[in-house]
Amino acid sequence: EGVVKLQQPKAQPRTDEGKKNFILKTPKGTRDYSPKQMAIRERVFNTIISCFKRHGAEVIDTPVFELKETLMGKYGEDSKLIYDLKDQGGELLSLRYDLTVPFARYLAMNKITNIKRYHIAKVYRRDNPAMTRGRYREFYQCDFDIAGHFDPMIPDAECLKIVHEILSMLQLGDFLIKVNDRRILNGVFAVCGIPDSLFHSTCSTVDKLNKATWEDVKNEMVGEKGLSPEAADRIGEYVRLHAGGLGLIEQLVQDPKLSQNKLAREGLGDMKLLFEYLTLFGIADKISFDLSLARGLDYYTGVIYEAVVLQPQNAHREEPANMGSVAGGGRYDELVGMFDPKGRKVPCVGVSIGIERLFSIMEQEVEASKEKIRTTETQVLVATPQKNFLDVKLKLISELWDSGIKAEMLYKKNPKLLNQLQYCEDTGIPLVAIVGEQELKDGVVKLRVVATREEVDVRRENLIEEIKRRTCQP
Amino acid sequence: EGVVKLQQPKAQPRTDEGKKNFILKTPKGTRDYSPKQMAIRERVFNTIISCFKRHGAEVIDTPVFELKETLMGKYGEDSKLIYDLKDQGGELLSLRYDLTVPFARYLAMNKITNIKRYHIAKVYRRDNPAMTRGRYREFYQCDFDIAGHFDPMIPDAECLKIVHEILSMLQLGDFLIKVNDRRILNGVFAVCGIPDSLFHSTCSTVDKLNKATWEDVKNEMVGEKGLSPEAADRIGEYVRLHAGGLGLIEQLVQDPKLSQNKLAREGLGDMKLLFEYLTLFGIADKISFDLSLARGLDYYTGVIYEAVVLQPQNAHREEPANMGSVAGGGRYDELVGMFDPKGRKVPCVGVSIGIERLFSIMEQEVEASKEKIRTTETQVLVATPQKNFLDVKLKLISELWDSGIKAEMLYKKNPKLLNQLQYCEDTGIPLVAIVGEQELKDGVVKLRVVATREEVDVRRENLIEEIKRRTCQP
Repeated sequence: EGVVKLQQPKAQPRTDEGKKNFILKTPKGTRDYSPKQMAIRERVFNTIISCFKRHGAEVIDTPVFELKETLMGKYGEDSKLIYDLKDQGGELLSLRYDLTVPFARYLAMNKITNIKRYHIAKVYRRDNPAMTRGRYREFYQCDFDIAGHFDPMIPDAECLKIVHEILSMLQLGDFLIKVNDRRILNGVFAVCGIPDSLFHSTCSTVDKLNKATWEDVKNEMVGEKGLSPEAADRIGEYVRLHAGGLGLIEQLVQDPKLSQNKLAREGLGDMKLLFEYLTLFGIADKISFDLSLARGLDYYTGVIYEAVVLQPQNAHREEPANMGSVAGGGRYDELVGMFDPKGRKVPCVGVSIGIERLFSIMEQEVEASKEKIRTTETQVLVATPQKNFLDVKLKLISELWDSGIKAEMLYKKNPKLLNQLQYCEDTGIPLVAIVGEQELKDGVVKLRVVATREEVDVRRENLIEEIKRRTCQP
Repeated sequence: EGVVKLQQPKAQPRTDEGKKNFILKTPKGTRDYSPKQMAIRERVFNTIISCFKRHGAEVIDTPVFELKETLMGKYGEDSKLIYDLKDQGGELLSLRYDLTVPFARYLAMNKITNIKRYHIAKVYRRDNPAMTRGRYREFYQCDFDIAGHFDPMIPDAECLKIVHEILSMLQLGDFLIKVNDRRILNGVFAVCGIPDSLFHSTCSTVDKLNKATWEDVKNEMVGEKGLSPEAADRIGEYVRLHAGGLGLIEQLVQDPKLSQNKLAREGLGDMKLLFEYLTLFGIADKISFDLSLARGLDYYTGVIYEAVVLQPQNAHREEPANMGSVAGGGRYDELVGMFDPKGRKVPCVGVSIGIERLFSIMEQEVEASKEKIRTTETQVLVATPQKNFLDVKLKLISELWDSGIKAEMLYKKNPKLLNQLQYCEDTGIPLVAIVGEQELKDGVVKLRVVATREEVDVRRENLIEEIKRRTCQP
């Protein structure tokens, strides 16, 4: 093979053939999924979907693009990352940026006031891709949302329970779910003297605290966002409070300034209720009330949350090495009303599982464990040592297929038996059904177990039952 | 309700509120899937996927958009139906038009010379939508393809076996799979004196024969495509031959003109082989060799096929009322080579299942049968007749979820028992786990069977086992 490599230098641009002179690639920030990657992806999906179904969710689907105006004004400054379609006549369209705005549009359009649904689909963002860390321009979102007028914090607590269940089942190591509330943030900013007009941009700066130092965050507030140093320091006193649970909530309820703010009081009251429910669910120890959580999207109105996987080797719990957000969500009570012709509101709360990050982590784990992943489910290879036995093989495999057996054969008239056995080794097929002249005469098929090389003659009429028995198929 | 309708006239444009003055809709030619539609869709998908897996296929995925130049020059005149993305800086992108060209790009890019894969994903065509007949601008394709250098017609026959299996399992009524070969069409056109330059446009005219009369087709050939009336008549003699099997093949092999044409001879030889294999598979009776099948896409090079569902009430087999194509495909041996820098070819054959048509048919059948479709899998509702029992319900439902039971509760602190039971009736939940003061004291849960209204006290520690037993979950 070394010789071949010398003779065929790689990546030589071919200028002699004009029409072949294009770049063979997927668009920037996107990727193909190979069969092996799909097998891992299916595993993650199945865990997530089984959890959504366990909680009684229905499933919906919406188009990959929406009218441009449906998406406009919903994402704040992130709107610049939306992909538009070319104007080819007709409606102006954009690729969906998330699944939440299409969901709200769906509810308003169909006048649905009460639904619990999941939606797993690709969304599109013209972001700077960082593909090794699982950040793509085309990526899956797995969303679970509860819409309807209900008693406070019961659906919100269930969303957090779902995140807890999914991250536990995927066994990615320790994790933490940070929660906060837009109304508490609003109150904090108000008592610190930040004008409403700076709310969203101050939020996005505060949200950087998990990656940057307080100095850097303060510099951005003062230098770029136009806050006074004093206001920034006042914010700092709140958002740098150690994260916690009921204790921190009590501390803030007692805070002489914050307790004067109506929104903050509401938010803190609901946060207390939320922690009560989380305690009943037995998951409060993984949830951290964190004033520095201020995630971006404009449409959130109440509780917000974000889950991070902690690096297992990192022992310092206070400063977890952030492997990035793997789930996030919150309450958005106004979004549906923005679509309803009469402005009727449908309160919603939901969570989005960051499947690409989870998938990246799982992929690395599979790689490290050297686990061999099967990419097919084939139970038996139909083989023969004989020449000119294609008709016999075709008849046999057809019988197997018609009985629900997963079967393959090589697409050769006269393959070597060794090649047929090798194919089973390579692809993990557990059984070989061998039929030669003798077997044909005796009315049997030789069933070979690939792992043990054990061979046994099975009467043709018992073959299907025997294969099902050996592959544990009902 | 009649009064309400009178007071609230529908579709009144609201001019008093400017910002709400937009149209609440999905883009033209697209639709949402409701939970009920998704349930039917899942059913169809599961049938198709289990068939693909039975035949040992792997699965891949590719991005929804490709570089524009990847798609260019692959679809002939259909290229005008491709959706382009807006040039927002960077690469020029288009939405995929089918899954075949991305598959070929994937093979060439990854230097794969041998794969059997399926791919289920949405594709996009700026066509004139006819949504009642299942023709959309965004629609699913379910593709199965076999790539590699193999002995002739073995993979081709398997593709037809797959179509046969899927249409049989979906029980949509009688169906017919028409087959032809591009090389035979080529030969026919050549001996009729049609220049090569008119091959594709003549094909698309011939392909209309299943919907139009021969007179109309001839008129289009002569009037629009520029054929001489004599050439058109000569074509007519071939393409109007009654469809058939081995008999028709023999007839054409004996044809003094056609037998002189090398391509036609090759095509007829392979067609004969194909029918031999189809006979071994036991499916030849549903396959019809039909010279008038001349489906469109430029990239086909050998056998082509198309499956139609026949209206059951129509007894005249000769002229089946065409419910439209529900599957189609063929051999494309040159497409991968168009992407390979060295032009290396990977022969391919595949089939695409027209899921939207199948889905439309299934949906109408479900509608007609009045079958009640469940949209969730919830096994048990956690309920209480008591006030202030939210904490008890939250603890119980949490236990159930953690044991893998699919459970719901109403998101109310104090719902009426009647409303809780009604919810089960509405959504098809089979069991209710009722816990009140007495049950709590006795350490039991009252398990109610919704269908029979039978109630039985189950000890709390046996509840999970009992629910699993009653819902047949292992």
